Amino acid sequence: MPTHLIVLAAGQGTRMQSDLPKVLHEVGQAPLFVHALASGDELEEGRRVLVVGHGAEAVRKSALDHDPEITVAVQETQEGTAHAVAQARAALEGASGTAFVLYGDTPFIRPETLARMAEARKAGAAVVVLGFEARDPGRYGRLVMEGESLLRIVEYKDASDGERAITLCNSGVICADVELLFELIDAVGNDNASGEYYLTDIIGIARDRGLDCTAVTCDEAETMGVNSRLDLAEAERVFQSRRRQDALETGVTLVAPETVFFAQDTVLGRDAVIEPNVVFGPGVTVESHARIRAFSHVEGAHVGARAVVGPYARLRPGAELGNDSRVGNFCEVKAAEIGEGAKVNHLTYIGDASVGAGSNIGAGTITCNYDGYFKHRTEIGENAFIGSSTMLVAPVRIGNGALTGSGSVITSDVPDGALALGRARQEVKPGLATKLMARLRAAKEKVKS
Amino acid sequence: MPTHLIVLAAGQGTRMQSDLPKVLHEVGQAPLFVHALASGDELEEGRRVLVVGHGAEAVRKSALDHDPEITVAVQETQEGTAHAVAQARAALEGASGTAFVLYGDTPFIRPETLARMAEARKAGAAVVVLGFEARDPGRYGRLVMEGESLLRIVEYKDASDGERAITLCNSGVICADVELLFELIDAVGNDNASGEYYLTDIIGIARDRGLDCTAVTCDEAETMGVNSRLDLAEAERVFQSRRRQDALETGVTLVAPETVFFAQDTVLGRDAVIEPNVVFGPGVTVESHARIRAFSHVEGAHVGARAVVGPYARLRPGAELGNDSRVGNFCEVKAAEIGEGAKVNHLTYIGDASVGAGSNIGAGTITCNYDGYFKHRTEIGENAFIGSSTMLVAPVRIGNGALTGSGSVITSDVPDGALALGRARQEVKPGLATKLMARLRAAKEKVKS
Amino acid sequence: MPTHLIVLAAGQGTRMQSDLPKVLHEVGQAPLFVHALASGDELEEGRRVLVVGHGAEAVRKSALDHDPEITVAVQETQEGTAHAVAQARAALEGASGTAFVLYGDTPFIRPETLARMAEARKAGAAVVVLGFEARDPGRYGRLVMEGESLLRIVEYKDASDGERAITLCNSGVICADVELLFELIDAVGNDNASGEYYLTDIIGIARDRGLDCTAVTCDEAETMGVNSRLDLAEAERVFQSRRRQDALETGVTLVAPETVFFAQDTVLGRDAVIEPNVVFGPGVTVESHARIRAFSHVEGAHVGARAVVGPYARLRPGAELGNDSRVGNFCEVKAAEIGEGAKVNHLTYIGDASVGAGSNIGAGTITCNYDGYFKHRTEIGENAFIGSSTMLVAPVRIGNGALTGSGSVITSDVPDGALALGRARQEVKPGLATKLMARLRAAKEKVKS
Repeated sequence: MPTHLIVLAAGQGTRMQSDLPKVLHEVGQAPLFVHALASGDELEEGRRVLVVGHGAEAVRKSALDHDPEITVAVQETQEGTAHAVAQARAALEGASGTAFVLYGDTPFIRPETLARMAEARKAGAAVVVLGFEARDPGRYGRLVMEGESLLRIVEYKDASDGERAITLCNSGVICADVELLFELIDAVGNDNASGEYYLTDIIGIARDRGLDCTAVTCDEAETMGVNSRLDLAEAERVFQSRRRQDALETGVTLVAPETVFFAQDTVLGRDAVIEPNVVFGPGVTVESHARIRAFSHVEGAHVGARAVVGPYARLRPGAELGNDSRVGNFCEVKAAEIGEGAKVNHLTYIGDASVGAGSNIGAGTITCNYDGYFKHRTEIGENAFIGSSTMLVAPVRIGNGALTGSGSVITSDVPDGALALGRARQEVKPGLATKLMARLRAAKEKVKS
Repeated sequence: MPTHLIVLAAGQGTRMQSDLPKVLHEVGQAPLFVHALASGDELEEGRRVLVVGHGAEAVRKSALDHDPEITVAVQETQEGTAHAVAQARAALEGASGTAFVLYGDTPFIRPETLARMAEARKAGAAVVVLGFEARDPGRYGRLVMEGESLLRIVEYKDASDGERAITLCNSGVICADVELLFELIDAVGNDNASGEYYLTDIIGIARDRGLDCTAVTCDEAETMGVNSRLDLAEAERVFQSRRRQDALETGVTLVAPETVFFAQDTVLGRDAVIEPNVVFGPGVTVESHARIRAFSHVEGAHVGARAVVGPYARLRPGAELGNDSRVGNFCEVKAAEIGEGAKVNHLTYIGDASVGAGSNIGAGTITCNYDGYFKHRTEIGENAFIGSSTMLVAPVRIGNGALTGSGSVITSDVPDGALALGRARQEVKPGLATKLMARLRAAKEKVKS
Repeated sequence: MPTHLIVLAAGQGTRMQSDLPKVLHEVGQAPLFVHALASGDELEEGRRVLVVGHGAEAVRKSALDHDPEITVAVQETQEGTAHAVAQARAALEGASGTAFVLYGDTPFIRPETLARMAEARKAGAAVVVLGFEARDPGRYGRLVMEGESLLRIVEYKDASDGERAITLCNSGVICADVELLFELIDAVGNDNASGEYYLTDIIGIARDRGLDCTAVTCDEAETMGVNSRLDLAEAERVFQSRRRQDALETGVTLVAPETVFFAQDTVLGRDAVIEPNVVFGPGVTVESHARIRAFSHVEGAHVGARAVVGPYARLRPGAELGNDSRVGNFCEVKAAEIGEGAKVNHLTYIGDASVGAGSNIGAGTITCNYDGYFKHRTEIGENAFIGSSTMLVAPVRIGNGALTGSGSVITSDVPDGALALGRARQEVKPGLATKLMARLRAAKEKVKS
């Protein structure tokens, strides 16, 4: 049975002190709402609805970039959580199955947790609420249970002393049959101090109709919400800490785990070694026995087995490094394949290019891929040897086994096995250095005096 | 009423194990004594006197570099704190108002704390001492109070059991009317075990004259002194931790706060994003919505709104980045303006230069600004396009909308809209690479065998 | 009397989830077994035997790389610790003196600890066992003592309740007279649940023969073993933390100690300053008052007094920096001497070279040292001035006081005091940039529409 996700993402997040809508702030280089959606990864896929409000356009754009099939519903006025969920009604018209209500600023609910909620639904509960045992329950809403049955959710301010003694608190996450969810929401009123429609009221309404509700519990850490930059930094810390632990447990060496930064989707092979101070952007796969050396920045790249990257290498989206290849210090590779065993070792920019297997790219080489309006490709064959500081003015092709002389500007294709040069012959002017320097020195002394 | 600061900075700091006088060791890239002076930032400005001793000349030079109006007084022999303060007498000749005694190795007293002391003075106390509630009072001097009145400061070794039970301890910071301070100091004797003149004795002397003394308390953390490299590292940690917290609270995103290093005067705008592993040197302002990417080193620079810096960008003093500009990986910018929307993206050195709005600087470009004796300027107009690995031999001017060919050495001015080239034509020698490489391979095999 | 080390290094380390034998995983960039061997640094040198099993060939190769005089003994089947030690018999044939049994996955036993064990041996004990007071004794073997005498080592599972109450636990490290050790081992049986030969049994056997055994204790932290990647990361953390503390205590400034990574043999001089984010590889010596700036990577290099390295400098093996020299941002130096006061400041690769005192290497300079088969040397004299982006095609020599023009390719030697140029003359084509860009713009617009 399909499972639908309704992610509430309309809040402004005033405490973030930001022009950016709260759910667009990032953890692991992905917006917070993406993490909320990822909590549903173990559920059978259904529709996904994002309810937006503040910064609606920016959030819509980001959501569609992330997932073109998402539906964005706008909550024009902020009238409470039940009102927010109600905005998803049109998007879920005619849907059957279960709907989850999630929160765009709550990134850490584990997929297994939602899976357990879905099972509790299947086992017969009409509505399932996610609760947690709070170390310090403070002003959280409390879940009033009777055995396995959830009787109601009581807000702290409305709670009796006995209810306040309850430590099982409400995370806000709920699931229910999708049609029933909207029926229950229709019955929610706003006759309360703040004049808002509370989603939590649906429990009482369901019970009044003789429907069974229950709660599933998770670790308090999963329910962490982000409300300030401090929370955001803490969420990043938690995220990174989880990912580092996962990597270590699957046979990756992180020399100094606390200095390695992962993106949400980083994949590292067994016996990969990650040295200190490495940053991964989105879209990275590193194969087994590869080594990412210190101070490397790797994003949207595939690193083949036993390849060595860095120190100080920057791999940008579209970098595809073959097995046993090498990208060294102060090198940037973008939208380029580096063939098996090829070497790009020093001070080089390879962009929009392919480098054949076994080729060696000299220090200071640059693919001149941009003319101010268009990007052009450079193709380098196998076992080619590109001399230091060769300018490869794209579009251009260097043949298999070809050579270029150091300091050459290559503007037209070089056939297989050919040597290409484009540089002036050296002239030497005896004694001229001594003369010029003496003149400058004299000028300098004049200035000083 | 003006407020004068006397900063005691004569100590050798033997436990630092350093040739450098203790107060010249740095926290947040500013010498310790500068932090001590900054504690007075909320007071009405008066004279500033630094009492120096060990390494007097080095400290004097650093002090005058920091603030040309500071007076440096030399304490030739180390005869105790009262004796040190007495050295400031000439510098404060004829001054009226309040004088504070501060310590050059105590960097964290908050300006608000000294402001509270100044108020206590105004409210009538002749001498105000700064105390703190010590978690572990150990061998600190104790403040003996009677209500709001400070009766005396008692050294641990001279204290009775009852006095040792006191947890309010002496920080050493004192303020008093400037004339009175020197009068009281004149009355201090050195009839004690170490034969030194103790500043703490002035409380008893003042009380004997019927003057009221009092204490103001601060957090123990403010009184932290630096006596070893371990203390120094800990002070740096505390400093950075404070600054990171401040940045987060004012609407800056620090992805991994613990990896960002601030200088004393770093200013970051709202919604600026600082990625992991960024080091700020002195004199940096980053405008709102700018992004400083990972592994950047930024010093003495202004980064405009929405500009993107790094990863691996080095901005040195005098770098002025316009709004929406871009300085990318392995680029160094020094004493140069980068115009609005201009791009310096890869492996480039721009020094002593200006780059006009909308210009694009190709990878590997270098402003050749130094001839061994003089620095010369490079001026690049608007919307110019500098080809990769262009050498701009300064002084030189590239016009608006001008182009330079990749690999050119530009030694004379290029008019607006002109194309400049300075490179040899490419020659191709068919089959020569194959031949040369075969010869080298044979030689290599010979060597091996 | 010589002291022999038997290091047991045969385990597979299944929990490491690695193709690499456990003892080849590294801490401080040295394999674990090297740390185990280093525990013997204060003992009189004797033979060193590594007992290998899983991944025997890889471990043997690494061991001989580390120390050509080590003997590698292979344990073909894993039949317990006594069986492992027995494999060292041939290697210790005819040896006299004391033998220690150490563990290749236990890197932190301090040399002083083994020295204390050796003294206990000299004082008369036949066998000395290293024990530790465990915070949580859990399932460790217990040392059953009677005064100074060790009666026996009892495995947790065989221990009585009274024995389980003992908190002095067995580290596994043992020393004994070398001949006696093998005699005792011969007497060990495998009549136990796992059918293995336990080294711990030798205590009981020795006692039965009337020999005195004793225990020496060390800090529990010294006995930490590495069994998983998490342990490995923790061991690295402990190692780095020790080294940072040592550096601070000997008068080095580490601005942010937790961001500096040491190798096992890093040597830093007094008043050296190490900025945040510096990684040291093996074989580094930094002299006093040198400064290693942020984001530097230094390996196999010697840095002279008052030299400044970085930010973003990479020193590779064989880099020898003279006093007061300077290697700056995005520079790589390998197998090269940089003379006193010489400067290599920007975007440069110096490999297989020497740079004379006082020379200045322009930005973007590259020593073209590799022809695809051989490496060649570049020699630069004193007070030479190499223009920006000079390609030095080795083998080549630049004389004292010589100059090279920016963008030159230098293929033959330049005499002292000469100026060498190798670049084309600049041509300017008025209006051509405007025309070319207009054409590209039009093409771009066509593509868009």
